[in-house]
Amino acid sequence: MKLIIGNRNYSSWSLRGWLACKQSGLAFEELTVNISGEDWEEAKRAMGEVQPSRGKVPILWDGETVVWDSLAILEYLGDKVGRDRFWPKDDVARGMARSMVAEMHSGYLPLRRALPMNVRARHEGVDLPDPVKADVVRILQLWAEARARFGHGGPFLFGTFGAADVFYAPVVSRFVSYGIAVPGFAQAYMQAVWEHDWMQTWIKGAEDEQWVIEQWDTVPAA
Amino acid sequence: MKLIIGNRNYSSWSLRGWLACKQSGLAFEELTVNISGEDWEEAKRAMGEVQPSRGKVPILWDGETVVWDSLAILEYLGDKVGRDRFWPKDDVARGMARSMVAEMHSGYLPLRRALPMNVRARHEGVDLPDPVKADVVRILQLWAEARARFGHGGPFLFGTFGAADVFYAPVVSRFVSYGIAVPGFAQAYMQAVWEHDWMQTWIKGAEDEQWVIEQWDTVPAA
Ligand SMILES: N[C@@H](CCC(=O)N[C@@H](CS)C(=O)NCC(=O)O)C(=O)O
Ligand SMILES: N[C@@H](CCC(=O)N[C@@H](CS)C(=O)NCC(=O)O)C(=O)O
Repeated sequence: MKLIIGNRNYSSWSLRGWLACKQSGLAFEELTVNISGEDWEEAKRAMGEVQPSRGKVPILWDGETVVWDSLAILEYLGDKVGRDRFWPKDDVARGMARSMVAEMHSGYLPLRRALPMNVRARHEGVDLPDPVKADVVRILQLWAEARARFGHGGPFLFGTFGAADVFYAPVVSRFVSYGIAVPGFAQAYMQAVWEHDWMQTWIKGAEDEQWVIEQWDTVPAA
Repeated sequence: MKLIIGNRNYSSWSLRGWLACKQSGLAFEELTVNISGEDWEEAKRAMGEVQPSRGKVPILWDGETVVWDSLAILEYLGDKVGRDRFWPKDDVARGMARSMVAEMHSGYLPLRRALPMNVRARHEGVDLPDPVKADVVRILQLWAEARARFGHGGPFLFGTFGAADVFYAPVVSRFVSYGIAVPGFAQAYMQAVWEHDWMQTWIKGAEDEQWVIEQWDTVPAA
Protein backbone atom coordinates (compact mmCIF):
# COMPACT_ATOMS: atom_id res chain seq x y z
CA MET A 1 0.00 0.00 0.00
CA LYS A 2 1.06 3.54 -0.70
CA LEU A 3 -0.30 6.68 0.94
CA ILE A 4 0.05 10.10 -0.67
CA ILE A 5 -0.05 12.90 1.88
CA GLY A 6 0.39 16.68 1.87
CA ASN A 7 2.47 18.94 4.08
CA ARG A 8 2.63 17.46 7.55
CA ASN A 9 2.52 20.88 9.13
CA TYR A 10 -0.71 21.99 7.49
CA SER A 11 -2.67 19.10 6.04
CA SER A 12 -5.21 18.01 8.61
CA TRP A 13 -6.92 15.55 6.27
CA SER A 14 -3.55 13.93 5.58
CA LEU A 15 -2.91 13.50 9.30
CA ARG A 16 -6.21 11.64 9.61
CA GLY A 17 -5.51 9.37 6.65
CA TRP A 18 -2.01 8.66 7.91
CA LEU A 19 -3.14 7.86 11.46
CA ALA A 20 -5.79 5.55 10.00
CA CYS A 21 -3.06 3.67 8.11
CA LYS A 22 -0.96 3.42 11.28
CA GLN A 23 -3.97 2.17 13.20
CA SER A 24 -4.61 -0.55 10.61
CA GLY A 25 -1.32 -2.18 11.53
CA LEU A 26 -0.59 -2.75 7.83
CA ALA A 27 2.68 -1.76 6.18
CA PHE A 28 2.54 1.20 3.82
CA GLU A 29 4.85 3.50 1.88
CA GLU A 30 4.49 7.25 2.21
CA LEU A 31 4.79 9.87 -0.51
CA THR A 32 4.68 13.50 0.61
CA VAL A 33 3.71 16.28 -1.80
CA ASN A 34 3.85 20.04 -1.22
CA ILE A 35 0.28 21.13 -1.89
CA SER A 36 1.20 24.80 -1.55
CA GLY A 37 4.10 24.73 -3.97
CA GLU A 38 4.18 26.55 -7.29
CA ASP A 39 4.42 23.21 -9.07
CA TRP A 40 1.43 21.73 -7.36
CA GLU A 41 -1.12 22.76 -10.00
CA GLU A 42 1.14 21.28 -12.64
CA ALA A 43 1.92 18.18 -10.62
CA LYS A 44 -1.80 17.57 -10.17
CA ARG A 45 -2.30 17.51 -13.92
CA ALA A 46 0.77 15.34 -14.51
CA MET A 47 0.55 12.83 -11.67
CA GLY A 48 -1.87 10.08 -12.61
CA GLU A 49 -1.72 9.02 -9.00
CA VAL A 50 -3.50 12.11 -7.71
CA GLN A 51 -6.05 12.35 -10.52
CA PRO A 52 -8.80 10.25 -8.94
CA SER A 53 -9.22 12.86 -6.20
CA ARG A 54 -8.93 16.04 -8.29
CA GLY A 55 -5.52 16.39 -6.67
CA LYS A 56 -6.66 16.35 -3.07
CA VAL A 57 -4.76 14.43 -0.43
CA PRO A 58 -4.68 11.95 1.26
CA ILE A 59 -4.96 9.18 -1.31
CA LEU A 60 -4.41 5.50 -0.59
CA TRP A 61 -3.35 3.10 -3.33
CA ASP A 62 -3.75 -0.57 -2.53
CA GLY A 63 -2.80 -2.42 -5.69
CA GLU A 64 -5.49 -1.42 -8.18
CA THR A 65 -7.73 0.05 -5.52
CA VAL A 66 -7.65 3.79 -4.98
CA VAL A 67 -9.31 5.44 -1.99
CA TRP A 68 -9.16 9.22 -1.94
CA ASP A 69 -10.74 10.59 1.19
CA SER A 70 -9.57 10.32 4.78
CA LEU A 71 -12.80 8.81 6.11
CA ALA A 72 -13.11 6.43 3.17
CA ILE A 73 -9.49 5.34 3.82
CA LEU A 74 -10.30 4.57 7.44
CA GLU A 75 -13.42 2.59 6.53
CA TYR A 76 -11.68 0.74 3.71
CA LEU A 77 -8.90 -0.28 6.09
CA GLY A 78 -11.54 -1.31 8.62
CA ASP A 79 -13.04 -3.57 5.94
CA LYS A 80 -9.60 -5.10 5.52
CA VAL A 81 -8.39 -5.62 9.08
CA GLY A 82 -11.70 -5.75 10.93
CA ARG A 83 -13.91 -3.00 12.27
CA ASP A 84 -12.90 -3.57 15.89
CA ARG A 85 -9.49 -2.07 15.36
CA PHE A 86 -11.13 1.32 14.75
CA TRP A 87 -14.53 1.28 16.44
CA PRO A 88 -15.87 0.38 19.89
CA LYS A 89 -17.51 -3.05 20.07
CA ASP A 90 -20.44 -1.83 22.16
CA ASP A 91 -23.37 -0.54 20.03
CA VAL A 92 -24.08 2.54 22.11
CA ALA A 93 -20.43 3.58 22.18
CA ARG A 94 -20.00 2.82 18.49
CA GLY A 95 -23.11 4.85 17.64
CA MET A 96 -21.54 7.82 19.38
CA ALA A 97 -18.07 7.32 17.91
CA ARG A 98 -19.48 7.01 14.39
CA SER A 99 -21.57 10.15 14.88
CA MET A 100 -18.62 12.15 16.20
CA VAL A 101 -16.42 11.13 13.29
CA ALA A 102 -19.05 11.84 10.63
CA GLU A 103 -19.89 15.18 12.28
CA MET A 104 -16.20 16.14 12.12
CA HIS A 105 -15.99 15.07 8.50
CA SER A 106 -18.88 17.25 7.35
CA GLY A 107 -18.90 20.05 9.89
CA TYR A 108 -16.93 22.51 12.00
CA LEU A 109 -16.33 24.86 9.08
CA PRO A 110 -15.98 27.96 11.30
CA LEU A 111 -13.26 26.24 13.35
CA ARG A 112 -11.48 24.85 10.30
CA ARG A 113 -11.42 28.20 8.56
CA ALA A 114 -10.46 30.40 11.49
CA LEU A 115 -7.87 28.03 12.92
CA PRO A 116 -6.11 26.18 10.11
CA MET A 117 -3.94 23.32 11.32
CA ASN A 118 -0.37 24.49 11.78
CA VAL A 119 1.52 21.99 13.91
CA ARG A 120 4.55 24.23 14.48
CA ALA A 121 2.67 27.42 15.40
CA ARG A 122 2.14 28.71 18.94
CA HIS A 123 -0.23 31.64 19.29
CA GLU A 124 -1.62 33.21 22.45
CA GLY A 125 -4.66 35.27 23.27
CA VAL A 126 -6.36 34.52 19.97
CA ASP A 127 -9.81 36.13 19.83
CA LEU A 128 -12.40 33.61 18.67
CA PRO A 129 -15.48 34.64 16.67
CA ASP A 130 -18.72 33.29 18.17
CA PRO A 131 -19.28 30.46 15.68
CA VAL A 132 -15.75 29.19 16.41
CA LYS A 133 -16.42 29.39 20.15
CA ALA A 134 -19.59 27.36 19.59
CA ASP A 135 -17.55 24.71 17.76
CA VAL A 136 -15.02 24.56 20.61
CA VAL A 137 -17.80 24.18 23.18
CA ARG A 138 -19.44 21.44 21.11
CA ILE A 139 -16.17 19.51 20.82
CA LEU A 140 -15.48 19.78 24.55
CA GLN A 141 -18.98 18.49 25.30
CA LEU A 142 -18.49 15.51 22.99
CA TRP A 143 -15.08 14.73 24.48
CA ALA A 144 -16.47 14.99 28.01
CA GLU A 145 -19.39 12.70 27.27
CA ALA A 146 -17.34 10.09 25.40
CA ARG A 147 -14.68 10.01 28.15
CA ALA A 148 -17.22 9.86 30.99
CA ARG A 149 -19.47 7.20 29.48
CA PHE A 150 -17.10 5.11 27.40
CA GLY A 151 -13.52 6.00 28.38
CA HIS A 152 -13.31 3.05 30.82
CA GLY A 153 -10.33 4.64 32.53
CA GLY A 154 -8.22 4.61 29.34
CA PRO A 155 -6.58 7.82 28.10
CA PHE A 156 -8.50 8.10 24.81
CA LEU A 157 -12.05 9.09 23.87
CA PHE A 158 -13.38 5.55 23.91
CA GLY A 159 -10.63 4.09 26.10
CA THR A 160 -8.06 2.84 23.61
CA PHE A 161 -6.88 4.78 20.53
CA GLY A 162 -9.43 4.54 17.71
CA ALA A 163 -11.27 6.24 14.86
CA ALA A 164 -12.60 9.10 17.00
CA ASP A 165 -9.07 9.95 18.19
CA VAL A 166 -7.82 9.79 14.61
CA PHE A 167 -10.47 12.25 13.52
CA TYR A 168 -10.06 14.68 16.42
CA ALA A 169 -6.23 14.65 16.39
CA PRO A 170 -6.06 17.73 14.10
CA VAL A 171 -8.33 19.53 16.58
CA VAL A 172 -5.93 18.69 19.39
CA SER A 173 -3.16 20.23 17.32
CA ARG A 174 -5.25 23.35 16.68
CA PHE A 175 -6.09 23.77 20.37
CA VAL A 176 -2.35 23.55 21.15
CA SER A 177 -1.31 25.95 18.37
CA TYR A 178 -3.90 28.61 19.15
CA GLY A 179 -3.67 28.33 22.94
CA ILE A 180 -7.35 27.46 23.39
CA ALA A 181 -8.14 27.30 27.13
CA VAL A 182 -9.69 23.94 28.01
CA PRO A 183 -10.72 22.24 31.27
CA GLY A 184 -8.48 19.68 32.98
CA PHE A 185 -10.08 16.55 31.56
CA ALA A 186 -9.53 17.91 28.05
CA GLN A 187 -5.93 18.85 28.84
CA ALA A 188 -5.27 15.29 29.94
CA TYR A 189 -6.86 13.90 26.79
CA MET A 190 -4.92 16.27 24.55
CA GLN A 191 -1.69 15.32 26.27
CA ALA A 192 -2.37 11.63 25.68
CA VAL A 193 -2.90 12.30 21.98
CA TRP A 194 0.12 14.60 21.73
CA GLU A 195 2.41 12.07 23.38
CA HIS A 196 1.19 9.13 21.33
CA ASP A 197 4.12 7.65 19.37
CA TRP A 198 2.48 8.18 15.98
CA MET A 199 1.65 11.81 16.78
CA GLN A 200 5.22 12.38 17.91
CA THR A 201 6.47 10.99 14.60
CA TRP A 202 4.11 13.27 12.68
CA ILE A 203 5.03 16.35 14.78
CA LYS A 204 8.73 15.68 14.23
CA GLY A 205 8.00 15.42 10.49
CA ALA A 206 6.18 18.76 10.55
CA GLU A 207 9.07 20.39 12.42
CA ASP A 208 11.59 19.12 9.89
CA GLU A 209 9.57 20.29 6.91
CA GLN A 210 10.89 23.41 5.14
CA TRP A 211 7.72 24.44 3.26
CA VAL A 212 5.99 27.51 4.65
CA ILE A 213 2.48 28.65 3.73
CA GLU A 214 2.37 32.36 4.67
CA GLN A 215 -1.38 32.60 4.60
CA TRP A 216 -1.70 30.00 7.34
CA ASP A 217 1.19 31.34 9.37
CA THR A 218 -0.36 34.64 10.41
CA VAL A 219 -2.28 34.99 13.67
CA PRO A 220 -5.94 34.51 12.79
CA ALA A 221 -8.13 37.58 13.27
CA ALA A 222 -11.49 37.42 15.00
CA MET B 1 -35.90 2.09 15.78
CA LYS B 2 -37.04 5.65 15.34
CA LEU B 3 -35.76 8.14 12.79
CA ILE B 4 -36.20 11.89 13.26
CA ILE B 5 -36.16 13.75 9.95
CA GLY B 6 -36.70 17.32 8.81
CA ASN B 7 -38.82 18.74 6.00
CA ARG B 8 -38.94 16.24 3.14
CA ASN B 9 -38.90 19.01 0.60
CA TYR B 10 -35.69 20.65 1.80
CA SER B 11 -33.66 18.41 4.07
CA SER B 12 -31.08 16.64 1.94
CA TRP B 13 -29.33 15.06 4.93
CA SER B 14 -32.68 13.66 6.11
CA LEU B 15 -33.29 12.06 2.72
CA ARG B 16 -29.94 10.29 2.99
CA GLY B 17 -30.60 9.03 6.52
CA TRP B 18 -34.08 7.87 5.54
CA LEU B 19 -32.91 6.04 2.41
CA ALA B 20 -30.21 4.37 4.52
CA CYS B 21 -32.90 3.11 6.92
CA LYS B 22 -34.99 1.84 4.00
CA GLN B 23 -31.94 0.12 2.53
CA SER B 24 -31.24 -1.64 5.84
CA GLY B 25 -34.51 -3.53 5.49
CA LEU B 26 -35.21 -2.94 9.19
CA ALA B 27 -38.52 -1.57 10.46
CA PHE B 28 -38.45 1.99 11.77
CA GLU B 29 -40.82 4.71 12.92
CA GLU B 30 -40.55 8.18 11.43
CA LEU B 31 -40.92 11.51 13.20
CA THR B 32 -40.90 14.61 11.00
CA VAL B 33 -40.01 18.01 12.43
CA ASN B 34 -40.23 21.41 10.71
CA ILE B 35 -36.70 22.74 11.00
CA SER B 36 -37.68 26.09 9.54
CA GLY B 37 -40.59 26.71 11.86
CA GLU B 38 -40.76 29.47 14.45
CA ASP B 39 -40.92 26.85 17.20
CA TRP B 40 -37.86 24.96 16.02
CA GLU B 41 -35.37 26.84 18.19
CA GLU B 42 -37.60 26.22 21.17
CA ALA B 43 -38.29 22.62 20.23
CA LYS B 44 -34.55 21.99 19.97
CA ARG B 45 -34.07 23.11 23.54
CA ALA B 46 -37.08 21.18 24.80
CA MET B 47 -36.80 17.90 22.90
CA GLY B 48 -34.33 15.64 24.63
CA GLU B 49 -34.45 13.50 21.51
CA VAL B 50 -32.73 16.07 19.32
CA GLN B 51 -30.20 17.25 21.90
CA PRO B 52 -27.40 14.82 21.04
CA SER B 53 -27.01 16.46 17.62
CA ARG B 54 -27.39 20.13 18.63
CA GLY B 55 -30.80 19.87 16.99
CA LYS B 56 -29.66 18.74 13.56
CA VAL B 57 -31.51 16.04 11.66
CA PRO B 58 -31.52 13.17 10.83
CA ILE B 59 -31.17 11.33 14.13
CA LEU B 60 -31.63 7.60 14.60
CA TRP B 61 -32.64 6.16 17.95
CA ASP B 62 -32.15 2.42 18.34
CA GLY B 63 -33.08 1.65 21.95
CA GLU B 64 -30.42 3.43 23.98
CA THR B 65 -28.20 4.04 20.97
CA VAL B 66 -28.36 7.43 19.30
CA VAL B 67 -26.74 8.10 15.93
CA TRP B 68 -26.97 11.67 14.71
CA ASP B 69 -25.44 12.04 11.31
CA SER B 70 -26.56 10.63 7.96
CA LEU B 71 -23.30 8.86 7.17
CA ALA B 72 -22.95 7.51 10.70
CA ILE B 73 -26.52 6.20 10.44
CA LEU B 74 -25.70 4.35 7.23
CA GLU B 75 -22.53 2.84 8.70
CA TYR B 76 -24.23 1.92 11.97
CA LEU B 77 -26.98 0.13 10.03
CA GLY B 78 -24.29 -1.57 7.93
CA ASP B 79 -22.76 -2.86 11.19
CA LYS B 80 -26.19 -4.25 12.09
CA VAL B 81 -27.36 -5.88 8.85
CA GLY B 82 -24.03 -6.51 7.14
CA ARG B 83 -21.89 -4.25 5.00
CA ASP B 84 -22.86 -5.94 1.73
CA ARG B 85 -26.31 -4.45 1.80
CA PHE B 86 -24.76 -1.00 1.31
CA TRP B 87 -21.35 -1.48 -0.31
CA PRO B 88 -19.97 -3.38 -3.30
CA LYS B 89 -18.25 -6.66 -2.40
CA ASP B 90 -15.33 -6.10 -4.77
CA ASP B 91 -12.45 -4.13 -3.18
CA VAL B 92 -11.80 -1.83 -6.12
CA ALA B 93 -15.48 -0.95 -6.51
CA ARG B 94 -15.90 -0.53 -2.76
CA GLY B 95 -12.86 1.74 -2.59
CA MET B 96 -14.47 3.99 -5.14
CA ALA B 97 -17.96 3.88 -3.60
CA ARG B 98 -16.55 4.72 -0.16
CA SER B 99 -14.53 7.59 -1.61
CA MET B 100 -17.53 9.01 -3.48
CA VAL B 101 -19.71 8.90 -0.39
CA ALA B 102 -17.11 10.47 1.90
CA GLU B 103 -16.34 13.15 -0.70
CA MET B 104 -20.03 14.03 -0.85
CA HIS B 105 -20.24 14.13 2.93
CA SER B 106 -17.42 16.63 3.33
CA GLY B 107 -17.44 18.49 0.04
CA TYR B 108 -19.47 20.12 -2.70
CA LEU B 109 -20.12 23.25 -0.67
CA PRO B 110 -20.55 25.49 -3.74
CA LEU B 111 -23.22 23.16 -5.13
CA ARG B 112 -24.96 22.75 -1.80
CA ARG B 113 -25.13 26.47 -1.17
CA ALA B 114 -26.12 27.63 -4.65
CA LEU B 115 -28.66 24.87 -5.25
CA PRO B 116 -30.38 23.93 -2.00
CA MET B 117 -32.48 20.79 -2.27
CA ASN B 118 -36.07 21.68 -3.06
CA VAL B 119 -37.89 18.60 -4.29
CA ARG B 120 -40.98 20.48 -5.51
CA ALA B 121 -39.18 23.26 -7.39
CA ARG B 122 -38.66 23.39 -11.16
CA HIS B 123 -36.37 26.14 -12.41
CA GLU B 124 -35.00 26.67 -15.89
CA GLY B 125 -32.01 28.44 -17.33
CA VAL B 126 -30.30 28.79 -13.97
CA ASP B 127 -26.89 30.47 -14.34
CA LEU B 128 -24.26 28.50 -12.46
CA PRO B 129 -21.20 30.16 -10.91
CA ASP B 130 -17.93 28.48 -11.93
CA PRO B 131 -17.30 26.59 -8.69
CA VAL B 132 -20.79 25.08 -8.97
CA LYS B 133 -20.12 24.12 -12.57
CA ALA B 134 -16.91 22.43 -11.45
CA ASP B 135 -18.89 20.45 -8.87
CA VAL B 136 -21.40 19.35 -11.52
CA VAL B 137 -18.60 18.25 -13.85
CA ARG B 138 -16.91 16.34 -11.05
CA ILE B 139 -20.13 14.52 -10.16
CA LEU B 140 -20.82 13.59 -13.79
CA GLN B 141 -17.29 12.21 -14.10
CA LEU B 142 -17.70 10.09 -10.99
CA TRP B 143 -21.09 8.80 -12.13
CA ALA B 144 -19.69 7.97 -15.57
CA GLU B 145 -16.73 6.11 -14.17
CA ALA B 146 -18.72 4.16 -11.58
CA ARG B 147 -21.36 3.15 -14.14
CA ALA B 148 -18.81 2.19 -16.80
CA ARG B 149 -16.51 0.20 -14.56
CA PHE B 150 -18.83 -1.21 -11.92
CA GLY B 151 -22.43 -0.75 -13.12
CA HIS B 152 -22.56 -4.31 -14.54
CA GLY B 153 -25.58 -3.40 -16.62
CA GLY B 154 -27.69 -2.49 -13.56
CA PRO B 155 -29.41 0.90 -13.38
CA PHE B 156 -27.51 2.24 -10.35
CA LEU B 157 -23.98 3.55 -9.79
CA PHE B 158 -22.58 0.20 -8.73
CA GLY B 159 -25.28 -1.93 -10.33
CA THR B 160 -27.83 -2.38 -7.57
CA PHE B 161 -29.05 0.38 -5.25
CA GLY B 162 -26.52 1.08 -2.49
CA ALA B 163 -24.73 3.64 -0.33
CA ALA B 164 -23.46 5.71 -3.26
CA ASP B 165 -26.99 6.09 -4.65
CA VAL B 166 -28.27 7.01 -1.19
CA PHE B 167 -25.67 9.76 -0.94
CA TYR B 168 -26.13 11.16 -4.45
CA ALA B 169 -29.96 11.03 -4.38
CA PRO B 170 -30.22 14.66 -3.17
CA VAL B 171 -27.98 15.67 -6.10
CA VAL B 172 -30.34 13.93 -8.49
CA SER B 173 -33.17 15.96 -7.00
CA ARG B 174 -31.16 19.20 -7.39
CA PHE B 175 -30.32 18.46 -11.01
CA VAL B 176 -34.04 17.91 -11.67
CA SER B 177 -35.14 21.03 -9.78
CA TYR B 178 -32.63 23.38 -11.36
CA GLY B 179 -32.82 21.93 -14.86
CA ILE B 180 -29.14 21.05 -15.05
CA ALA B 181 -28.32 19.75 -18.54
CA VAL B 182 -26.69 16.32 -18.33
CA PRO B 183 -25.62 13.72 -20.91
CA GLY B 184 -27.78 10.70 -21.73
CA PHE B 185 -26.12 8.20 -19.42
CA ALA B 186 -26.72 10.58 -16.49
CA GLN B 187 -30.34 11.15 -17.50
CA ALA B 188 -30.89 7.40 -17.45
CA TYR B 189 -29.29 7.09 -14.03
CA MET B 190 -31.29 10.00 -12.65
CA GLN B 191 -34.49 8.48 -13.96
CA ALA B 192 -33.72 5.18 -12.25
CA VAL B 193 -33.21 6.99 -8.95
CA TRP B 194 -36.27 9.18 -9.42
CA GLU B 195 -38.52 6.20 -10.18
CA HIS B 196 -37.24 4.07 -7.34
CA ASP B 197 -40.14 3.22 -5.01
CA TRP B 198 -38.52 4.82 -1.97
CA MET B 199 -37.77 8.04 -3.85
CA GLN B 200 -41.35 8.14 -5.08
CA THR B 201 -42.58 7.81 -1.50
CA TRP B 202 -40.27 10.64 -0.40
CA ILE B 203 -41.26 12.89 -3.34
CA LYS B 204 -44.96 12.34 -2.58
CA GLY B 205 -44.22 13.27 1.04
CA ALA B 206 -42.48 16.47 -0.08
CA GLU B 207 -45.40 17.37 -2.35
CA ASP B 208 -47.90 16.89 0.47
CA GLU B 209 -45.91 18.98 2.92
CA GLN B 210 -47.33 22.45 3.64
CA TRP B 211 -44.19 24.09 5.08
CA VAL B 212 -42.51 26.62 2.81
CA ILE B 213 -39.04 28.09 3.31
CA GLU B 214 -39.02 31.32 1.29
CA GLN B 215 -35.27 31.65 1.27
CA TRP B 216 -34.89 28.33 -0.55
CA ASP B 217 -37.81 28.91 -2.88
CA THR B 218 -36.36 31.77 -4.90
CA VAL B 219 -34.42 31.15 -8.10
CA PRO B 220 -30.77 31.04 -7.15
CA ALA B 221 -28.64 33.87 -8.53
CA ALA B 222 -25.28 33.26 -10.18
N1 LIG C 1 -12.60 15.10 2.20
C1 LIG C 1 -11.20 15.01 1.83
C2 LIG C 1 -10.59 16.40 1.81
C3 LIG C 1 -9.17 16.44 1.33
C4 LIG C 1 -8.59 17.84 1.18
O1 LIG C 1 -9.34 18.83 1.04
N2 LIG C 1 -7.24 17.96 1.21
C5 LIG C 1 -6.54 19.22 1.05
C6 LIG C 1 -5.36 19.28 2.00
S1 LIG C 1 -5.73 19.21 3.71
C7 LIG C 1 -5.90 19.28 -0.34
O2 LIG C 1 -5.50 18.26 -0.85
N3 LIG C 1 -5.76 20.46 -0.96
C8 LIG C 1 -4.97 20.59 -2.15
C9 LIG C 1 -5.72 20.96 -3.38
O3 LIG C 1 -6.97 21.06 -3.32
O4 LIG C 1 -5.06 21.15 -4.41
C10 LIG C 1 -10.50 14.07 2.79
O5 LIG C 1 -11.02 13.83 3.89
O6 LIG C 1 -9.47 13.49 2.44
N1 LIG D 1 -23.66 16.04 8.94
C1 LIG D 1 -25.05 16.05 9.31
C2 LIG D 1 -25.70 17.35 8.90
C3 LIG D 1 -27.12 17.50 9.35
C4 LIG D 1 -27.72 18.87 9.04
O1 LIG D 1 -27.00 19.88 8.90
N2 LIG D 1 -29.07 18.94 9.00
C5 LIG D 1 -29.80 20.17 8.74
C6 LIG D 1 -30.99 19.90 7.85
S1 LIG D 1 -30.61 19.32 6.22
C7 LIG D 1 -30.45 20.65 10.04
O2 LIG D 1 -30.82 19.84 10.87
N3 LIG D 1 -30.62 21.96 10.28
C8 LIG D 1 -31.43 22.45 11.37
C9 LIG D 1 -30.68 23.19 12.42
O3 LIG D 1 -29.45 23.29 12.33
O4 LIG D 1 -31.37 23.69 13.33
C10 LIG D 1 -25.73 14.83 8.71
O5 LIG D 1 -25.20 14.27 7.72
O6 LIG D 1 -26.73 14.36 9.22
